[in-house]
Amino acid sequence: MALIVQKYGGTSVGTTERIRSVARRILDTQRAGNGVIAVVSAMSGVTNRLIELASEVSPDHQPTEREMDVLLATGEQTTIALTAMAINQMGGKAISLTGEQAGIVTDTSHTRARISDIDPAEVHRLLGGGHIVILAGFQGKSREGRITTLGRGGSDLTAIAMAAAAGADLCQIFTDVDGVYTCDPRVVPGARKIDEIAYDEMLEMASSGTKVMQSRSVEFAKKYGVRFEVRNSMNDKPGTIVTEEHPNMEAVVVRGVSIEREQAKVTIENVPDEPGVAAGIFQAIAEAGVIIDMIVQNVSKTGKTDISFTLHRLDLKKAEDTLRPIVEGLGDPVFVETTDGIAKLSVVGIGMRSHSGVAAHMFAALAKDGINIQMISTSEIKTAVTIDEAQIEKAANVVHSAFEL
Amino acid sequence: MALIVQKYGGTSVGTTERIRSVARRILDTQRAGNGVIAVVSAMSGVTNRLIELASEVSPDHQPTEREMDVLLATGEQTTIALTAMAINQMGGKAISLTGEQAGIVTDTSHTRARISDIDPAEVHRLLGGGHIVILAGFQGKSREGRITTLGRGGSDLTAIAMAAAAGADLCQIFTDVDGVYTCDPRVVPGARKIDEIAYDEMLEMASSGTKVMQSRSVEFAKKYGVRFEVRNSMNDKPGTIVTEEHPNMEAVVVRGVSIEREQAKVTIENVPDEPGVAAGIFQAIAEAGVIIDMIVQNVSKTGKTDISFTLHRLDLKKAEDTLRPIVEGLGDPVFVETTDGIAKLSVVGIGMRSHSGVAAHMFAALAKDGINIQMISTSEIKTAVTIDEAQIEKAANVVHSAFEL
Repeated sequence: MALIVQKYGGTSVGTTERIRSVARRILDTQRAGNGVIAVVSAMSGVTNRLIELASEVSPDHQPTEREMDVLLATGEQTTIALTAMAINQMGGKAISLTGEQAGIVTDTSHTRARISDIDPAEVHRLLGGGHIVILAGFQGKSREGRITTLGRGGSDLTAIAMAAAAGADLCQIFTDVDGVYTCDPRVVPGARKIDEIAYDEMLEMASSGTKVMQSRSVEFAKKYGVRFEVRNSMNDKPGTIVTEEHPNMEAVVVRGVSIEREQAKVTIENVPDEPGVAAGIFQAIAEAGVIIDMIVQNVSKTGKTDISFTLHRLDLKKAEDTLRPIVEGLGDPVFVETTDGIAKLSVVGIGMRSHSGVAAHMFAALAKDGINIQMISTSEIKTAVTIDEAQIEKAANVVHSAFEL
Repeated sequence: MALIVQKYGGTSVGTTERIRSVARRILDTQRAGNGVIAVVSAMSGVTNRLIELASEVSPDHQPTEREMDVLLATGEQTTIALTAMAINQMGGKAISLTGEQAGIVTDTSHTRARISDIDPAEVHRLLGGGHIVILAGFQGKSREGRITTLGRGGSDLTAIAMAAAAGADLCQIFTDVDGVYTCDPRVVPGARKIDEIAYDEMLEMASSGTKVMQSRSVEFAKKYGVRFEVRNSMNDKPGTIVTEEHPNMEAVVVRGVSIEREQAKVTIENVPDEPGVAAGIFQAIAEAGVIIDMIVQNVSKTGKTDISFTLHRLDLKKAEDTLRPIVEGLGDPVFVETTDGIAKLSVVGIGMRSHSGVAAHMFAALAKDGINIQMISTSEIKTAVTIDEAQIEKAANVVHSAFEL
């Protein structure tokens, strides 16, 4: 008997009809001879309605985070009960568990808690009794006995972490797409589903805009060696297996092309090239809650340098306001230049480590179609560039073809 | 510092606006120098919507009761979070507790669990820290760690039981009426709010159709000597104090008049007057899940007797179906006669114990207005009759006047 963890997101359990179809799939998985732990999210729309209620009772302030968790946890609790009922009604034997009942212990960072421990004893006891376990995603309990939630992508994290703790043979992340694609099919019509991808590739894809899963869940899976599959809850097609890299994977140099729109760029010119200056700038930016992506600084020749970074365009104003006093404090004339309307294009693949010429091939393909590159940033398995946002669709298609994806 | 338990029902917390007004009242109570534990119900309508979802996922069966409890408990959990947020937003210090977190332990009778124990340590710890405790009504946790609910009137029970366990000085049950009335004001325009009523009177009023509270909560309050007040959450009027009886109470012979409509009557004629026959009949009725109210049997002169009982008219068909085989099994010709369209009228008061003539006075008042009495049943503090339902309003006014209420 294999032990399988399945995770169903909010859209997959968005109506009672869909819950029944998820229940059927879970039951079929058990009847095929497996132990099943199914992690479910709140029905789509429910979390937003709860947040709305919270802002109605707290019109002038942020709602208490501790109470926000008590409130949001009801969303998943509703789904576990309904899913277990549906399975029982179909003749199965299901029992629901809240995060706490399943032994998921977190720290006390309400609304963004981290899992600190999982005791799978109760889950194993129920599985041993022939039960299907329906587990609330996204939630746990602190050692002080308070309800906590794990933040964005929390249900994926629950599934991966429980798969690790319970020693599952497979973890299936059901979503509303067939898997991870070589590029967004809405942008590149020829994009293909990837059958197998390494954790690191998945991480680079996620951080470059292919938002099938949050990076933290993939990182957790990598850390604990949880092999998982991303697949569609609306059909029976095999999905994308995310796993440890193995030598065969290197045969493919580029696994996929990832794009991120609505980016902006900030360049600070004439910055004194001294220790601590860059640190001061980025510390202030971080304290302002602005999330930045690429940072590029070239070697200095004159004792002055230019630093550029990218960020979401909605954060541009906040970044400018934060930088103004810092730049003035630097004494010498330092200029801040901002550019809106840019996009990021990345090619990702662990094969890059052993193949040279990937960047050159990418740049050549872009140049051939007259697409100008603004910034370049690379990691061991990724090459990323920023370009004019108006050219991103053309660029994605050109690069996708150039690497014969 | 007094410790006050307040309970707010579904209508009182039916919108976020009302939750804010409840939060304001709770905060004012604390600022007046009291420790406050507020028990809240699900927002009105929420429980019904959850039941609807449950029946959608379990179309052909009753939903699993264990899962029903997991589902229903989310209703109160939502309200505690919102109420605590509202108080915190107003500058107060509130913390929400689920039934389990508040140490409420129940048996495992899902959807109708009984409280077996309350450990108020966490509640006292929070109160000691200057917090207002917002407690989910209607729910607890079994010793096996499963979420349970207490059934109808469960939030009242939570409030009364927590008041007993935490040693509260006062328990206030906030509802949408000003208190307990001498009769339903919609029927008897001259009905008055009662300032003080004994547990036993309240119990007899409740079981006779004055449904301000479920009997089980009043019984619990009586058992543990919890003095409580029923009052309106929409205004500041003092309500009705429900307490131990004391000698002054007996000055009022009749505390109130209670009516119950939509009743039916079943009479079984020519029943052998032998031990075990009545038991057999009522056991079968109970097993069929029919709730009966009055039972009347007069002394037998011929070895045969007639037994009558009343029940809700919607249960009449089920009662007839249940009785048919039993009556046939009794051999001799036994007849079952059923009458629909009757109502029950009761006068209640502990003063009856020491005053004679209450029944005579009531019967005379009814006779004077041409109202025929069908059945009579009395307890130490109640005299109840059944009459034609068409005459119940007239009868209630006549009796209410006769006792100068």
